[in-house]
Amino acid sequence: MSNLTRHVTWNGPIVMVGFGSIGRGVMPLILRHLGCDKSKITVIDPSTASKHIADELGVRFVQQAITRENYKKELKPLLTAGPSPAFLVNLSVDVDCLDLMRLAREVGALYIDTVIEPWPGFYYNPKLGSAARSNYVMREGLLALKRKFGEGPTAVSCCGANPGMVSWLVKQALLNIATDLNISHDVPKTREGWGKLMKKVGVKGIHVAERDTQRAKKPKPLDTFINTWSIEGFVSEGLQPAELGWGTHEKKLPPEGRRHKGGCGAAIYLERPGADTRVRTWTPEAGAHFGFLVTHNEAISISDYFTVKSGRTVSYRPTCHYAYHPSNDAVLSWHELLGAGGKRQTHNHILEENEIVDGKDELGVLLYGHKKNAYWYGSRLTIEEARKLAPYQNATGMQVTSAVLAGMVWAIENPTAGIVETDEMDYARCLEVQRPYLGSVEGVYTDWNPLKSRVDLFETAPDKRDPWQFANIIAR
Amino acid sequence: MSNLTRHVTWNGPIVMVGFGSIGRGVMPLILRHLGCDKSKITVIDPSTASKHIADELGVRFVQQAITRENYKKELKPLLTAGPSPAFLVNLSVDVDCLDLMRLAREVGALYIDTVIEPWPGFYYNPKLGSAARSNYVMREGLLALKRKFGEGPTAVSCCGANPGMVSWLVKQALLNIATDLNISHDVPKTREGWGKLMKKVGVKGIHVAERDTQRAKKPKPLDTFINTWSIEGFVSEGLQPAELGWGTHEKKLPPEGRRHKGGCGAAIYLERPGADTRVRTWTPEAGAHFGFLVTHNEAISISDYFTVKSGRTVSYRPTCHYAYHPSNDAVLSWHELLGAGGKRQTHNHILEENEIVDGKDELGVLLYGHKKNAYWYGSRLTIEEARKLAPYQNATGMQVTSAVLAGMVWAIENPTAGIVETDEMDYARCLEVQRPYLGSVEGVYTDWNPLKSRVDLFETAPDKRDPWQFANIIAR
Repeated sequence: MSNLTRHVTWNGPIVMVGFGSIGRGVMPLILRHLGCDKSKITVIDPSTASKHIADELGVRFVQQAITRENYKKELKPLLTAGPSPAFLVNLSVDVDCLDLMRLAREVGALYIDTVIEPWPGFYYNPKLGSAARSNYVMREGLLALKRKFGEGPTAVSCCGANPGMVSWLVKQALLNIATDLNISHDVPKTREGWGKLMKKVGVKGIHVAERDTQRAKKPKPLDTFINTWSIEGFVSEGLQPAELGWGTHEKKLPPEGRRHKGGCGAAIYLERPGADTRVRTWTPEAGAHFGFLVTHNEAISISDYFTVKSGRTVSYRPTCHYAYHPSNDAVLSWHELLGAGGKRQTHNHILEENEIVDGKDELGVLLYGHKKNAYWYGSRLTIEEARKLAPYQNATGMQVTSAVLAGMVWAIENPTAGIVETDEMDYARCLEVQRPYLGSVEGVYTDWNPLKSRVDLFETAPDKRDPWQFANIIAR
Repeated sequence: MSNLTRHVTWNGPIVMVGFGSIGRGVMPLILRHLGCDKSKITVIDPSTASKHIADELGVRFVQQAITRENYKKELKPLLTAGPSPAFLVNLSVDVDCLDLMRLAREVGALYIDTVIEPWPGFYYNPKLGSAARSNYVMREGLLALKRKFGEGPTAVSCCGANPGMVSWLVKQALLNIATDLNISHDVPKTREGWGKLMKKVGVKGIHVAERDTQRAKKPKPLDTFINTWSIEGFVSEGLQPAELGWGTHEKKLPPEGRRHKGGCGAAIYLERPGADTRVRTWTPEAGAHFGFLVTHNEAISISDYFTVKSGRTVSYRPTCHYAYHPSNDAVLSWHELLGAGGKRQTHNHILEENEIVDGKDELGVLLYGHKKNAYWYGSRLTIEEARKLAPYQNATGMQVTSAVLAGMVWAIENPTAGIVETDEMDYARCLEVQRPYLGSVEGVYTDWNPLKSRVDLFETAPDKRDPWQFANIIAR
C-alpha cells in the first residue's frame, strides 16, 4: 500500500453533496485511489468558496443548497446519469442522511456519509427535549431503516475519523492487548465473538481520546469561532446532550444521567451540552488533560457492538465516549460561545493548512480497566506530514478524508451489504487503505488513571476502589 | 493631573522587595511622580532577569531571595539607612506581608503591598484544609495586626488594581448610580455612611469584572503557562478556594459553600479552586462571558466595608466577587494545568508588551440589582495606550502599577494611618493620581443579567424571581 495505489475501479457517476473542509480533502484522494472518470464527478455546495478547487481538480461544480424540498429533483438526475450505478458521497451539513439513503436505495446507488445528519431545525430546537435531540435517537432511526432495507446497495453510515476509523482502531487495539496479555484468541469473525473477546480481555471502557495540538499563526479574534474542521458540525454536536455508551462496570448513573425509553439500551445521555462537559483523559503527547464529552455516534455504536448478552440479559458492555481536546482556538471559541449563553459568534473561520504553525492531531482509542491498565492506539499525524501527503487539508481533515476513502473502497468491494455501520466493516482492509494518510500509528500503554488527574487540595469523594468509574472521569 | 505631575516628595530610602512584572513597571512611575533621590532606592529580587532595567533606571539592584530566616538581616539595614524614614514597597511573592509590616513598624517605615502574601508552603498544603488556605483567614490576620498596631506609620495593604483600585472605583460607581437615580446624597465620610448609601441605592452585589483581551503574537506552546502578569501569583490564588463576600439578598448557600467559624463573617468560601469556578459576568467590549471566581482580598473587604448593621445584626451586605477572564493564553494555561490534575507546567512565560499584538484590559466593577439593573465602571486600557504611557509593562501591569503609585502618594500624604485597607483610603485622591494611566475610564449601564447567558436547550432550574442570585451567576 502506498499513497499511489489504485484500489478499485468505479465506472458510474460520483455525486458529492457538500464541498467544505472534508469534501475538498476527499476529492484528491478519490482521484488518486479510485479508477474513475473525472467527467462523471459532480460536487454540489451552496457556497462557491471552494469552486476553484473543483476547477483545479477538473470536476464539475454545481452551486446549490440541497433541501428537503429539492433533494430528489436535484440529485436524482445526477445519480441516474448512468450507464453504471452512482456513488452518493454525502459530506454536507443540514441534509438528512436517511432521506439521502432512501434516495440512493431507490436508484441503486452506493452511499457514504460521516455523520447522521438531520434536516435543519433539529439541533437547536429546545421544544424537542434532550432525549429527542440525541444521537441515540438518530441512530435508532438508522437501525430501523437498516432492518427495513436488509441487503441491497451498500450504504456506509458515519464513516469519517470518528465516528468511523476509531471503530477499526478499537478492534486492532483489542487484538494487540490480547496478544500482550497472552490471552489465546483468534481474530473474531462475528459481533458476538468481538464482544466476548473484549469481555475476556477485561476492558471496562474506551475513550475516543483525541488531542488536536495544531496552532494557528494568528491569535483568535474576539467574537470568532475558530476550528480545524466544520464549525457548523462542531457547534451542533457540542450543543447536543453529552452521550456515552454505558458499561456494565458502572455503579451509578451520574446525577444528570438519563436512560432512553426504547432502543438498544447501550447508551445514556446527560442533561447538559457535551461541549460543556469535561472528562479526564490521556493521549501520548499531551499526557493527562481535559477532553470534552461531545456526543458522537461511535460512543453508542461501539458500546452496542461489543455488548455480550446471555439471552436478553446484558452480561457485559464497555463504557465508551468521546474525550476531545480540540485545537486551542476551538477551546477558546467554546468558552466564548458558552459564556455568551450559546449565542453564536459573528464570524466563523476554519484553519487552512497554511494558517497553522505546527502541531498534530492525536486521534486514538484508549482501552482502559484491563490488566495492563490502559492502552492508547491511534494516529499521530502532524500538519507537516499532512501537507506532504495530499492537498487542501490539515491533519484533522486528513484523518477524516482517508476514512471516507477507505469506506468508499470497502463499499465498492462489498456493494450489496445494505446499510452498515463501520463497526461491521472489515477493519483490517479499511485501515490498510487508510494507513498511508495516518502518520505515525502507535500503541502506548500508560499507568495513568483519572484519579491521577485531580487537584488534591479540596474535599472530594472519588471512588478509589475503581478508578475507572465514570464518576471519576467526569470533571465537576 | 498629568503623567508628569510630581505629587509628593520622599527623602528617605525606598526599598522595593520583588522586581517582577509589577516592580519593573512601578519603578519608572516612582521616579516620575515622587520627588526622591535615586541613590536611595534599592530593589531586591532573587532573579537577575530584570537587573538590566534597574541599571537603565539608575537604581541599585541586589540579587537576594528574601526568606523567613533572612528578611530582618537583609532589609533592616536598608530600611534604617536614614536619615529620613524609609518606604518598604513589597511587590514580591513568597514573602510574608505581615512579617514585613511588623518590621516596617519596628523601624518606622511606611509600607505598601498588593496582596496579603504568606511565606512559602501555605498555598499548596493540602493538610491545611480549604478554610485555612483562604484569603478570609489571611485578612483576619491582617485585621488583628491592624487592631494591635493602631495608629502609627502607614502600611497600605492590598493596593494594586485589584485588590486596590477597584475599591475606589466602587465608591465612584455608587455615587454615579445614586446621581443617575436621583437619590439625594452627600459623599459619605464614614464607613457606615458608605454602607447606608449602598443599601439605599439597592445594590445587591458587585462583580470585579475584568476581561483581558490582550493577544500574544505567538501561539501558546504545550506545557507552558502564559500570563500577562505574575504566574506564581495567579496559580497560587487560582488554586485557593473560590471566595466571595456573601450578600444579604442571597437565599441559599451554594452546595459547596462553607461559612467560616470566626472573624467578620462577610464572606464564604467554596470547596473548589477559584480557577475552576466559572461565573457569568459582563464587561462593555466582551459583553456576556464566563469569568473565573478567583479569590481576592477585595471580594471580602468590599462586602465587609459596605455591611450595614443594626446593633450586632447585619441588615445589609452586598455580594462581591472577582469575575476574571484573563488573557486567552491564560485561560488555555489553566485548562492545561487543571486537566493535568494541578501539575504545574514545565515553562512559565509572562507576555512582555512587545509580545502582544493588540487588546486591552477591561477592569471595572459591575454593581447590579438596583433600579437601573447593572452598571459597569472601570478602566479600559489598550496595550497601545500602555506602551505610550510608561515603559516595561503591558495594560494589565499598568493598572496595577499606577495603583501602587497612588497608594504610595496617599501614604506619604497620610503617614500615620497605621495599617489600612484601600477601602479606607481617599478614593478620589487615589483615582486622581492614577487617572493618567487608566486609558478610557467609563461607566456603562447594561440590561444584561445572568439568566441571559444560559444555553436554554437543557433542563435547568434557574431562580427567575431574582436573576441576581449567586445560584444563577455560577455556571455548572
